[in-house]
Amino acid sequence: MKSKPLAAALLFALGAGYAAAALAQVKPEILVKQRQAKMVLQAKYFGPLAAMAQGKAPYNATVIARNAGYLAVLGEMAWDGYDASTKDVKSRTLPVAYSNADKFKQAQQHFESAVGQLVAAAKGGDEAKVKAAIGGVGKSCGSCHDDFREN
Amino acid sequence: MKSKPLAAALLFALGAGYAAAALAQVKPEILVKQRQAKMVLQAKYFGPLAAMAQGKAPYNATVIARNAGYLAVLGEMAWDGYDASTKDVKSRTLPVAYSNADKFKQAQQHFESAVGQLVAAAKGGDEAKVKAAIGGVGKSCGSCHDDFREN
Repeated sequence: MKSKPLAAALLFALGAGYAAAALAQVKPEILVKQRQAKMVLQAKYFGPLAAMAQGKAPYNATVIARNAGYLAVLGEMAWDGYDASTKDVKSRTLPVAYSNADKFKQAQQHFESAVGQLVAAAKGGDEAKVKAAIGGVGKSCGSCHDDFREN
Repeated sequence: MKSKPLAAALLFALGAGYAAAALAQVKPEILVKQRQAKMVLQAKYFGPLAAMAQGKAPYNATVIARNAGYLAVLGEMAWDGYDASTKDVKSRTLPVAYSNADKFKQAQQHFESAVGQLVAAAKGGDEAKVKAAIGGVGKSCGSCHDDFREN
């Protein structure tokens, strides 16, 4: 790579699609791909916690604290992907996510708040409270999926 | 959701596939999907920075600091997805990523180190240093893609 000019190296690194996207309005298809990516990672880091709360996996406070932190960051990242420009892109998102943006925003805030409570509980270290907080996050996922996602 | 038992609510929230995955060895196909999701988000948050470093988008120190922080967290998240169990799953990852795991690990550490330098530069606030550090991250992406990704 050393012989390539920096700009070319960066373009190469990104792939032309992403570099172009960064320079202008991001294409709706890319926004959908990005928001779906965030959901995949949220599931990755929430899944093991749900299993622990249900007693189906051994309780591991270190993993819970780490994953709660990841979920807090992922929660910050994502909602810009539900831009109105994406409403005609095929996805499981229901039209109401665009037509009732206030309600959708509330559901997002509900998730972020539940994750915040989980982060706090994980710092506290009380296993019963941590499990209850994991349940709270799960409910916030579920109620948002109920209202805004095709099943 | 209130009438559903917690376990059912969590399973619902996660989707059966993810919940099952959390309870046992994660399936190779899911590991690949998760690592690809991380790459999508890395591109999302690195793309605008590359554009700024190339002078193709207005320099924005706030966005740079935020995205650098996201990239640091994403950098932590991801490498477990390149488990040996995934080597036969269709993806752009080249066989050498599995056969020369040490070299692949070095490339991952190169990326994380470059992101660490960007985080530090963003805190320092010197635009020239920040742009150089963005270039360093881009090079680390590119050299890893050169060696370990099908083009």
